[in-house]
Amino acid sequence: MNTLASYTAWIEKEIESFAFPTHPTNLYDPLRYFMTLGGKRMRPMLTLMSANLFGKSIQESMPAAMAVELFHNFSLIHDDIMDDAPLRRANQTVHEKWNTNIAILSGDVLLVYAYEQICKQPPHIIPSLLSLFNKTAIEVCEGQQMDMDFETRSDVSAEEYIEMIRLKTSVLLGCALEMGAIIGETSLENRKALYAFGEHLGIAFQIQDDLLDLYGDPEKVGKQVGGDVIANKKTLLSILAKTNASAVQLSKLNALQGELDITKKLSETKALFEDLNIQELCNNEMRKHYDFAMSSLSTVQVANSLEELHALSNYLFHREY
Amino acid sequence: MNTLASYTAWIEKEIESFAFPTHPTNLYDPLRYFMTLGGKRMRPMLTLMSANLFGKSIQESMPAAMAVELFHNFSLIHDDIMDDAPLRRANQTVHEKWNTNIAILSGDVLLVYAYEQICKQPPHIIPSLLSLFNKTAIEVCEGQQMDMDFETRSDVSAEEYIEMIRLKTSVLLGCALEMGAIIGETSLENRKALYAFGEHLGIAFQIQDDLLDLYGDPEKVGKQVGGDVIANKKTLLSILAKTNASAVQLSKLNALQGELDITKKLSETKALFEDLNIQELCNNEMRKHYDFAMSSLSTVQVANSLEELHALSNYLFHREY
Repeated sequence: MNTLASYTAWIEKEIESFAFPTHPTNLYDPLRYFMTLGGKRMRPMLTLMSANLFGKSIQESMPAAMAVELFHNFSLIHDDIMDDAPLRRANQTVHEKWNTNIAILSGDVLLVYAYEQICKQPPHIIPSLLSLFNKTAIEVCEGQQMDMDFETRSDVSAEEYIEMIRLKTSVLLGCALEMGAIIGETSLENRKALYAFGEHLGIAFQIQDDLLDLYGDPEKVGKQVGGDVIANKKTLLSILAKTNASAVQLSKLNALQGELDITKKLSETKALFEDLNIQELCNNEMRKHYDFAMSSLSTVQVANSLEELHALSNYLFHREY
Repeated sequence: MNTLASYTAWIEKEIESFAFPTHPTNLYDPLRYFMTLGGKRMRPMLTLMSANLFGKSIQESMPAAMAVELFHNFSLIHDDIMDDAPLRRANQTVHEKWNTNIAILSGDVLLVYAYEQICKQPPHIIPSLLSLFNKTAIEVCEGQQMDMDFETRSDVSAEEYIEMIRLKTSVLLGCALEMGAIIGETSLENRKALYAFGEHLGIAFQIQDDLLDLYGDPEKVGKQVGGDVIANKKTLLSILAKTNASAVQLSKLNALQGELDITKKLSETKALFEDLNIQELCNNEMRKHYDFAMSSLSTVQVANSLEELHALSNYLFHREY
């Protein structure tokens, strides 16, 4: 079994050796900068692990793994513009460090470079890889648009929210795994089972992210506790609170959104969430998707051990809990 | 022989029947709007004509033709943001009618839909189509970045300018033609000859565009004469003028850039251009690329007649001259 650390090292090495052209510098310098800001590299790791299940080497699946990672970074560069975010991984975003036009265009070309990686896989599997990748990329854009639309809506349901995070982030995990399975030339059943594993692991992971914002250990989470509450961000917590609140609780929740005393805002929102049992409701939802992911993984018919994917799942879900 | 009008009709019909999803509306309404604003549809026409040379039907090459047209529209939506352009084909641009974020994201998803069209071609040619399309898309982005970089430079040479227009617009014409040749499963020589035809036809066409701005019949050009001069836009005319000017002429040209009396600015710039023989120099450069394009086309080994491509070339170069 390969360790998570060795997978990370292979991926970082590949990214470092990735040879973007030097000119035009305003197009490629931002990509060299952004691609080396780090991150968990969870998506390419899923592709490599999935292909490895079927006996394919790191070399054989690295182009597809890179396609997924380049696509992810393209979407981050453009999302950062749309969210007007100054920082990404504690560094300046591309549109902050350069400008919006450069961030749009270097994001565009990064998306094309993702497709170029797909071309490096054997020709007979390129149509399948391309078709899956297109479907996923369209869904990610749809999820991002839903997320933007939600900002100005007050009636977002938990189902809509979960559908949004499924599209915006989880389908790419499913795609990463299924691409590994396509490279492994395994059965359609195995492909679909690995996709579903990634899809539901991703949903569970996003719900965990929402939970950790308020209930995580601040030292381990590495950011301000309750940041989402303070910023009135829509999360599964805030949506379930609104949905389950009585009229009195709802008016209190709404009033707290305008509260300027941050300590008060945080403690009173947290108290209301406790009355409404929000943490448990979210935990149940997270667990439902996590269990579905694991049961889907268990149906994969493969001679090799599934322990690498189990190790990655454990790593992702025992960060700060 | 099919007429240009029948090609246009087939393409318009295909675009009208193109079924973007309905939701999210903020993602897809802009695409339905933008794709039906019209245009010459020159690029998809090139793909259809090229494939037809080798006996392929409209149906057989329409997906690749649409890939090229969708890509072109993606690049226009994003370029309009970067150029802060309010109008496109006499209608509001996407970022004006909706907003910048929606224009970024709907452009992104349109690029993916272009790739999705490639998937509709027979699997065994998808790798070749994808590889050519990626190379071209990267070059178009590089050309757009060069164009943006040129805005703040005063030392752009004619060679650099032509390389910029080659990348930004001409390679896509070459790609459109070569995709038709790939669908036609013809020789590599024919593919390369058709690519070179499109590439140089495109360069000639852009130079003609620069010329028509100042020397075209205003009624036929459909826009203000000398708009590029008034806006101090870099064109082959202004670059060659700067390059060939004496010190005295150069300082006069520079002074005219700040001239507020538009009639004076236009007439005096035009007089200087005449002294410097700019129209003829540009005509020579245009003719060089046009002739190269035609001689490249004449090397294509094909039983079918080349008259459709000749008709399109004639149409493109006898608009207002």
